[in-house]
Amino acid sequence: MHRTRVKVVEEALDANNTIARANRADFDQHGVTVINFMSAPGAGKTTLLERIVTDLPGVRVGVLEGDVQGSMDADRLAHLHVPVTQLNTDPGFGGECHLDANMVRSALPEVPLADIDLLMIENVGNLVCPAEFRVGEDRRVMVSSVTEGEDKPLKYPLMFRTCDLVLVNKIDLLPHLDYDLDRFLYHLEQVHPDVDRFLVSARTGEGIEQWRDWLTGVVSAERAFV
Amino acid sequence: MHRTRVKVVEEALDANNTIARANRADFDQHGVTVINFMSAPGAGKTTLLERIVTDLPGVRVGVLEGDVQGSMDADRLAHLHVPVTQLNTDPGFGGECHLDANMVRSALPEVPLADIDLLMIENVGNLVCPAEFRVGEDRRVMVSSVTEGEDKPLKYPLMFRTCDLVLVNKIDLLPHLDYDLDRFLYHLEQVHPDVDRFLVSARTGEGIEQWRDWLTGVVSAERAFV
Repeated sequence: MHRTRVKVVEEALDANNTIARANRADFDQHGVTVINFMSAPGAGKTTLLERIVTDLPGVRVGVLEGDVQGSMDADRLAHLHVPVTQLNTDPGFGGECHLDANMVRSALPEVPLADIDLLMIENVGNLVCPAEFRVGEDRRVMVSSVTEGEDKPLKYPLMFRTCDLVLVNKIDLLPHLDYDLDRFLYHLEQVHPDVDRFLVSARTGEGIEQWRDWLTGVVSAERAFV
Repeated sequence: MHRTRVKVVEEALDANNTIARANRADFDQHGVTVINFMSAPGAGKTTLLERIVTDLPGVRVGVLEGDVQGSMDADRLAHLHVPVTQLNTDPGFGGECHLDANMVRSALPEVPLADIDLLMIENVGNLVCPAEFRVGEDRRVMVSSVTEGEDKPLKYPLMFRTCDLVLVNKIDLLPHLDYDLDRFLYHLEQVHPDVDRFLVSARTGEGIEQWRDWLTGVVSAERAFV
């Protein structure tokens, strides 16, 4: 039974990857760089987007907002006058806990690919399944809040292992927590040696410049590649 | 395709509920009260367990520890000399993002049901799928950390709607956050009116007495029911 189950999962992931490649072809055709932006619930993804969407020189940003229900984050970002597309995963039960390539594909007609250079896909808040499903992205960025504890890389290794950048957020709270930053970085190194990582505070703005520069660098690299 | 998908999900949940009832029968036979304990990653479930497992008068506690990988939380609890059973959900991919009834069933031979009165099942850190799968529990308790923001009841409504108690944790951090507790409670009320809720700090011990009393009350009520 276990083998059967593994086979079913493999086939589902195969199908997902086929659709992810189709998404990628559409993104490439329009010269749009795509980031799959992931974290646990409440780690600060939306605030980290608010910090950059209108402030990347020469880069027009769009957002695809994944949520189980509601449009609170999309509403926040729409106030900044960037194109935001809401994608809800609720099919009548508890909802899907992640975005997959087909859900993203279904939303693409609503995304103004011709008018943007960078599409930030804010995934559902979850450290497990979003890491399993490629959606056609160029890079994966994850946020780990210091309030979540130092053990998270060891408990959710696929997420930390498959991302290209880790934003360690809410560092303004470090003086008030029993959180050992060195221990977190040691765990991160065990799971994903040398992965890019910045210490940031979406609240105070600390480290945000590095996050902006990293994104600008990725967009430039993708443009050069085309 | 959407209808087919809904049917597949319905059938999977049906099968899950059948196994959950079998688990429940085993728990009842041994007079064990079972709590399905859920939250986002890093909300403080394990620390909240450490605060109570050895300190419930007349109640022998066991723990079933659900994690994608590793046994860090189980190791922490084993130090307190309570029976802990580790259940890993990793099948070779990213791992399952929740416990289901069958996974719990597979672990039951390792759980000393005859020697405990209360089994705390610590679910995988995730606010979506754990809410969809009954495992045979008597009650559901969820933890929402104030660091996650006030909007969580609206974004993950099934989790907040199907639980019997909400522990609002890390309230020692309130002075350092832009978090409006009244707004959170207003959102909670919209999603699950009158649900039991305690403001707690696993770190300082504030509110832990209420959490202990609630558990003791549930065990007494279940004993009376038998």
